[in-house]
Amino acid sequence: MPPKGTFITFEGIDGSGKSTQTKRLAKHLEGLGHTVVLTREPGGSVGAEEIRRLVLEGDPDRWSAETELLLFTAARRDHLERTINPALAAGHIVICDRFADSTRMYQGLSRGDLRHKVDALHDLMIGTEPDLTILIDMDPSVGLARAKGRQTAEERFEDFGQDLQVKMRAGFLDLAKQYRDRFRLIDGSRDMDAVAAEIRKVVLDYLT
Amino acid sequence: MPPKGTFITFEGIDGSGKSTQTKRLAKHLEGLGHTVVLTREPGGSVGAEEIRRLVLEGDPDRWSAETELLLFTAARRDHLERTINPALAAGHIVICDRFADSTRMYQGLSRGDLRHKVDALHDLMIGTEPDLTILIDMDPSVGLARAKGRQTAEERFEDFGQDLQVKMRAGFLDLAKQYRDRFRLIDGSRDMDAVAAEIRKVVLDYLT
Repeated sequence: MPPKGTFITFEGIDGSGKSTQTKRLAKHLEGLGHTVVLTREPGGSVGAEEIRRLVLEGDPDRWSAETELLLFTAARRDHLERTINPALAAGHIVICDRFADSTRMYQGLSRGDLRHKVDALHDLMIGTEPDLTILIDMDPSVGLARAKGRQTAEERFEDFGQDLQVKMRAGFLDLAKQYRDRFRLIDGSRDMDAVAAEIRKVVLDYLT
Repeated sequence: MPPKGTFITFEGIDGSGKSTQTKRLAKHLEGLGHTVVLTREPGGSVGAEEIRRLVLEGDPDRWSAETELLLFTAARRDHLERTINPALAAGHIVICDRFADSTRMYQGLSRGDLRHKVDALHDLMIGTEPDLTILIDMDPSVGLARAKGRQTAEERFEDFGQDLQVKMRAGFLDLAKQYRDRFRLIDGSRDMDAVAAEIRKVVLDYLT
């Protein structure tokens, strides 16, 4: 069913600048005449935002790692069906702040040894991978300092401490090797303008 | 980790009398000195009841069949962890009105051809099967007449019409063959006292 758009995800540890950079890229691409849908996970559709609230509000231990994984997968399925897939079918560019790679890291690495279940559940109920994944890589001490400056109560997922961030960084770099075709590694330790310029170049290379 | 209790589920088409019969069995077993936990799906734990509301309230088409399946599986996982498994570990008898077999029928049969995904998801994220499943079997026209008499807005799952009920009955009978060891087939078309007496006999045979 052409036209078929482009699905771009941003990944990286906390404070790596994903949110800022997704907005900058969206604005740039719109300036070039593209229709861009900017979204994020968990959430990104009416139903998925309701599930997000169910998971993130209340006692942090109210859900086990497995139940949480199922709830996030339900939210992702809704997000795909209601937001991402329709935009791609219309030929738009979808830019998503975090997607399945974040689940592979946050649920698969940090909450017990769930990685096998994370992958199996993805294959069974989601299937979709991005066309392009921008991994903003940086030293966790830089990312953590940035993240602490803007932390809200809802962001408990982004409060795992530095040891975990070191593990996450290594995990994301492993993922980038595993999914070599779609990953693009960006050095996020430079100033934001330099990072934005490199992301633009990488994405325009892909699009043309 | 003994002591290990007994996990008994009730299944059957709408209006087959599951709710009444679970209560009667629970009361009888309590009278014999057993500790009984009477529960139901979807729901059965604080978190699972919240997920139940998310699925059953609002526009019936707000979730796709796949998202709904994921949400119900999340609810079941929570129900198992918070209600069923602790009771079994304490040596109690758990009686549950509907469990995974209902998902195999209601999501697996009625909403597109999801049966393969239903089974794979169960194996991946749930795993547990009951020790004993009481299937109350009856002609759908009898069940439907009974169900209509007590229908509430929330019971949209139990409003599929007679054609589907015929399919469900056949599906449950197939399940009973597939899981021959744990299923017990009860003729639900007789008066409730006769049905209750047979269920008591079957359960006491199992327990002793």
